Amino acid sequence: MNKSIINYQPIIEHIYQDLLLRKNYGEVASYIPELAGIDDEQFGICLAHVSGEIYCAGDWEPQFSLQSIVKVLLLSMAYARLGGQLWQRVGVEPSGTPFNSLGTLEHDDGIPRNPFSNAGAIVISDILIDLYENPRQALLEMIRAFAGDESIQFDKKVAESEKNEGHRNVALVNFLKSLGNIHNDVDEVLDLYFDCCSVSINCQQLAKTFLLFANNGQTIDQQHRLLNRSQTKRINAIMLTCGFYDEAGDFAYKVGLPGKSGVGGGIVAVLPNEFSIAVWSPRLNEKGNSYRGLKFLEQFTTDTGQSIF
Amino acid sequence: MNKSIINYQPIIEHIYQDLLLRKNYGEVASYIPELAGIDDEQFGICLAHVSGEIYCAGDWEPQFSLQSIVKVLLLSMAYARLGGQLWQRVGVEPSGTPFNSLGTLEHDDGIPRNPFSNAGAIVISDILIDLYENPRQALLEMIRAFAGDESIQFDKKVAESEKNEGHRNVALVNFLKSLGNIHNDVDEVLDLYFDCCSVSINCQQLAKTFLLFANNGQTIDQQHRLLNRSQTKRINAIMLTCGFYDEAGDFAYKVGLPGKSGVGGGIVAVLPNEFSIAVWSPRLNEKGNSYRGLKFLEQFTTDTGQSIF
Amino acid sequence: MNKSIINYQPIIEHIYQDLLLRKNYGEVASYIPELAGIDDEQFGICLAHVSGEIYCAGDWEPQFSLQSIVKVLLLSMAYARLGGQLWQRVGVEPSGTPFNSLGTLEHDDGIPRNPFSNAGAIVISDILIDLYENPRQALLEMIRAFAGDESIQFDKKVAESEKNEGHRNVALVNFLKSLGNIHNDVDEVLDLYFDCCSVSINCQQLAKTFLLFANNGQTIDQQHRLLNRSQTKRINAIMLTCGFYDEAGDFAYKVGLPGKSGVGGGIVAVLPNEFSIAVWSPRLNEKGNSYRGLKFLEQFTTDTGQSIF
Amino acid sequence: MNKSIINYQPIIEHIYQDLLLRKNYGEVASYIPELAGIDDEQFGICLAHVSGEIYCAGDWEPQFSLQSIVKVLLLSMAYARLGGQLWQRVGVEPSGTPFNSLGTLEHDDGIPRNPFSNAGAIVISDILIDLYENPRQALLEMIRAFAGDESIQFDKKVAESEKNEGHRNVALVNFLKSLGNIHNDVDEVLDLYFDCCSVSINCQQLAKTFLLFANNGQTIDQQHRLLNRSQTKRINAIMLTCGFYDEAGDFAYKVGLPGKSGVGGGIVAVLPNEFSIAVWSPRLNEKGNSYRGLKFLEQFTTDTGQSIF
Repeated sequence: MNKSIINYQPIIEHIYQDLLLRKNYGEVASYIPELAGIDDEQFGICLAHVSGEIYCAGDWEPQFSLQSIVKVLLLSMAYARLGGQLWQRVGVEPSGTPFNSLGTLEHDDGIPRNPFSNAGAIVISDILIDLYENPRQALLEMIRAFAGDESIQFDKKVAESEKNEGHRNVALVNFLKSLGNIHNDVDEVLDLYFDCCSVSINCQQLAKTFLLFANNGQTIDQQHRLLNRSQTKRINAIMLTCGFYDEAGDFAYKVGLPGKSGVGGGIVAVLPNEFSIAVWSPRLNEKGNSYRGLKFLEQFTTDTGQSIF
Repeated sequence: MNKSIINYQPIIEHIYQDLLLRKNYGEVASYIPELAGIDDEQFGICLAHVSGEIYCAGDWEPQFSLQSIVKVLLLSMAYARLGGQLWQRVGVEPSGTPFNSLGTLEHDDGIPRNPFSNAGAIVISDILIDLYENPRQALLEMIRAFAGDESIQFDKKVAESEKNEGHRNVALVNFLKSLGNIHNDVDEVLDLYFDCCSVSINCQQLAKTFLLFANNGQTIDQQHRLLNRSQTKRINAIMLTCGFYDEAGDFAYKVGLPGKSGVGGGIVAVLPNEFSIAVWSPRLNEKGNSYRGLKFLEQFTTDTGQSIF
Repeated sequence: MNKSIINYQPIIEHIYQDLLLRKNYGEVASYIPELAGIDDEQFGICLAHVSGEIYCAGDWEPQFSLQSIVKVLLLSMAYARLGGQLWQRVGVEPSGTPFNSLGTLEHDDGIPRNPFSNAGAIVISDILIDLYENPRQALLEMIRAFAGDESIQFDKKVAESEKNEGHRNVALVNFLKSLGNIHNDVDEVLDLYFDCCSVSINCQQLAKTFLLFANNGQTIDQQHRLLNRSQTKRINAIMLTCGFYDEAGDFAYKVGLPGKSGVGGGIVAVLPNEFSIAVWSPRLNEKGNSYRGLKFLEQFTTDTGQSIF
Repeated sequence: MNKSIINYQPIIEHIYQDLLLRKNYGEVASYIPELAGIDDEQFGICLAHVSGEIYCAGDWEPQFSLQSIVKVLLLSMAYARLGGQLWQRVGVEPSGTPFNSLGTLEHDDGIPRNPFSNAGAIVISDILIDLYENPRQALLEMIRAFAGDESIQFDKKVAESEKNEGHRNVALVNFLKSLGNIHNDVDEVLDLYFDCCSVSINCQQLAKTFLLFANNGQTIDQQHRLLNRSQTKRINAIMLTCGFYDEAGDFAYKVGLPGKSGVGGGIVAVLPNEFSIAVWSPRLNEKGNSYRGLKFLEQFTTDTGQSIF
C-alpha cells in the first residue's frame, strides 16, 4: 500500500503563497505578555505523512509556544494510564462556551464538560500529578521521542509570564477545588499546567509529534507507542468535537479534521491513517484561533478533498 | 476498486443476537401519545453499502417514525438551495444543551446554535416555506427517490398527536418569532415541522435514503443528486458535532461516525465513501437516544474498526 | 391621629414643573402597536392619602393602559383566596432578569421566580380561571369598587393588538404548559392575561385603587376589603423586591417604596399607612420603566424624606 | 414623641421560649472548620431601641462570628466616602443566585450584582484598601464606637481557618481580577475580607452597632455618625432587596424588615426610626441562613405587626 500518492509540497506552497498575498487579520494573544512581542506576520506549515514524507513551507523552523495544543498530549497521557475511568473527572461533550468559561461548572458539580477547556485541562493536570512521578519530565520525554528531537524544552519565561497574569486560571483551579475536583495543591496543579503549556516547538516538531494520532497511537517507526488503536480514535473524536472551543463546529464544518489550536498561534490537525499537519501564525481571530491557520486548513482540505467526511 | 470487501452480514447478526440476550433499558418517548403504544422490544438494523449491497437483521421491515432524523434532510434541502447564506439564520456549533432547550436563544438573538436542535429545525422549516412551493411534497419525493420506494408516507396520526401535545415546540416557534427569526406564520411553520417529523420509514428505507451522505450527495445509481461533494462533507460534519443533542460528544467518542437520532427510536449513521447504517429500537436512554441503537453502533464500530477516526 | 399633616400639592407641582423643563428620554413601548400612537409627552401624577385627601398634577385625567401594574391586582385576587398555598405555583424571589425572560424557568421546573414576571402573571391568570367563575368581571368589579368609578373598562383594541404581536407571551404560556404549570387551555389563559393588562385607567383611579395597599387591604371608607393586614404587608414586600423587573433593586434604592410599573408608562407606589401615588408618562427607559415616572418618584421621596426605609 | 411605647421584653421572651420547645433544624456551617465545633443549640436575641432601651433573651452574651453581616458595614464605610460613584464597581440588584455564585459575573463584565454577594463584598474590600490607610482598624474602631465596647476583636483563628479552605473566594477574587474589577493584590484583598468577616460579636453588641441604620446613620447619643439620613435609607433598601442571598424575597415577604444574615448564625434586622434586632442561632437552613433566627423574626413581626410594610 503506497500511502503517499499525493505530492503535498506544491499544494501547501500554493496556498501559503496565496494567503501571504491576502490581508492578515486578528491580534496576537495579549494576556501572556511574553507572547505579545512576537513578529506576528510569521506563517509556517508542516505536513508529516505516515509514509515518512515531510512537507514544509514558510516559517516552519521558528519555535512558538504550544499552549492549549498540549492539552491533547496531557489528555492522552492520562487516558493511556486510566482508560475510561478518566471520564469520572471530566466529560467529552462540547460546551458551546469560551475556553476559559466558569459558567457551566457550577451546574455540573465541578466536572468540566471536556478536557480541552481550561477547566478540563487543569483537572487533567491534577490527575497527572497522581499518575506520574514527574509529569513535566514525562511530557517532555514523550514529545522529544515522538518529534525525534531531544532539544525541545519548556520556556520558563512564558510560563512565568502566564503565572503572573493568569488570574482566570487561578480562579478556575480554586473553583474546581471548592467543587471537589482538584485533589492536589492548587498552586502545584497550576504550575504544572502553565509549564506544560509553555513548551517551545516548531511546525515540523509539532506535526511529527501529532503523527501518532494519524498512526494508531505510535511513531511510524513503531519505536514509541502512547495509545492503542481504539484509544487513538477516541482522542481524535474528542479533538473533532471539542478542539476549538466555541468554534469547534465551525472547524469541523469548514476543515473537517480532528485538530487543536493554541493561543500561541499554532493549529495541528490529523487525517487518520494519512497525515498530521501543523500550521502556525500568531494573529488570532476573536475566538482565539489562528486566523491564517484556519484559512490555510480550510483551503487545504477544500483543494485536496482530504477530510474525514 | 472493490469497496465491499467486508461481508457485514455475520457481523451485524452477531451483534444483534448478542444484544437480544442482554437486558434492554430505557423508555419509549411518551410525549407523543401516538408513539407510546409501540411494541418497545422491536430491534432492527440495515446497512446499505455504496457498492449496492444491503445487509439487514431483526425488525428491519416494520416502519417507525422518522422524527428528528428528518432534520438532516430538511437541512440538506435548505442548504442545497441557499448555500452558505443559510448560516445567517442558524449556527453550526454544538450547544451542550438538550434538544428542546430555550436557554441559549435569548443570548444568541434568536439564532439557534445548530440546525439539529428543535429551534434550529423550526427555523429551517420556516426557510423551506420560502424556498419550496410545496415543501412537504418536496421532502416526500426526495425520500422516495433516494429510498427507491414510492410508498413512503407521512403518518397523520403521529403529526396530529404531536401537534396536540407539542407545547414546548409552540413555545419555541413563538419565541423565535418574537426574536425575529421566523418569517412565516408560526402555525404554518409548526405544521410543516410536525408533518415532516411524522414520516414513516423502516430501517432499509432509511439506510438507503442516507446512503447519499456516504456517496457524495447522490444515489449510487447517480440518478438523483441532493448535494455536491463539498456540501455533503459539511452536512456530515454537522451530524458529527451536533447529531445527538448533549450526547453528541459521547457518540463521536464511542461510535465515531456522523449520525442522527430520533425519538422514534431510529438512529442512522454514515461512513463516508462506504456505507450508511440504520438501527431502530424504541426504548430511549435519558438523553432521548435509542438505548439499543447506541449499543449496537458502538459495538459495530469497535468490532469492525470502521469509523472516521 | 391626623395623618395628613403634609400638604403634598405644592411638592408634587414643583417636581412636576421641574421635570417638564428637563429633557425627556426613552421610547414608547412599540411591541403593542395600539400603544405606540400615544402622545408621548403626557405626564400626570396623583397622590391619594389614607386621610381621603387627593393631590393631582399634570395629565392625571387621560386614561392609559394598566399593563403589568394589573399583576399586583391579579396576585392579590389569587392570594386572597388561596393564601400561602399559592406559593407552590410561583415564587417570591427577585429574578435578576428581564420581565419576559424564559431563561430561569428551565432550571426551576416551570415555577416562575415571582408573580410579577410575565411567566408568573400568566401562572396567576391560570389560577384565577380555577378560582373565579368570571375572573375578568371580578377584576373589573374590584377595580371599580376601589377606584370608586364604574366607568373603568378593558380596552379591547389594546388587548387585540397585544394578542396579535405577543409571540413572546405565547412562547411563555406554552413553555409553562410543557413544564406542567398551566392547568387550563393556553389560549384561554393568555386571553385572560391580555384582557386584564388592557384595563384603561387614569392616575387618580389608579392611585385610589392602590390605596388599599396603604390601608391594610381595604378602602378607606371600609366598604371594600380585598386582603387582610398581614396579606397586604406581604404583597407590599413582593412589590418592593420584584416590582421593577431587573431594576427592582435600583427602585428600592432610589425611591424606597413598594411599587409596580407597566409598559403603558404608569407607575404606582405605596407608603403603608400613608398614601399611594400614581405617576404616568409613556416614554420608557431601556428597562421598560417610565423614565419621567422614575425621576418623579425619586425626587419625591428625596424631597419629602417619605419612604419605608 | 415617646418612641418606646411597646415593652418588647415579654414578646421576645415568649417567642424565644416557644421556639426552644420546637424542633431545631439545619446544619452549622462546615466550610469554616473553626466554626464547626460550636454548641449549635445556642440561641440568643437582643433588640436595641432608638429610645435607648435594650431587650435581651437567651444566649445573647456569647460571641459568634459576624461573617457576612460585616458586608453591610464594609459597604457603609465605602459608601460614606465614595457616594454614588461606588456603583460603578458594584450593582444594587438582587441576583437570584447563591451567595458564592460566579455565574452571572461573566455576563456582567465583572460588576457584581450587589455588594452582599461574596463577589460584591470582595470588590468593596478592594475599594476600602484604596480609601482607608488601615481598613481593618477603621472597621474595628467603628464597630467598637457604635457597640460602645472596646473589647470587640477579630478572631484570628476563624480568619485563618477560612483562608485555608476558602477556595471559592480565592476563585472569586481572581475571577474579578481577570475581569478588571480588583485593583489591588488579590491576596491582600482576600486577607482583608476574611479578617473583617471574622469579627467576634454578641447579640447585644450587634444590635447596638446596627442601631445606626434605624437612627439615620448615627449613634443615639449622636456622638458617632457613619452615614447621613439619605445614605442610611439607601443601605436599608439594599439590605431589604439583597440581604439574604436567594432568600431575600422570602425574608422580605415573611419578616418585612431590612436585614442581613451571616453563616455564623447571626441575623440582624432594622425597623427604621424604631429599633435594630439581632438574633443568633448557629444551625443554618439550606440557603445558609439561621433556621431559628428566621423563625424568630417571622414570628416577631407577625406578633407585633412591626414591619416596614
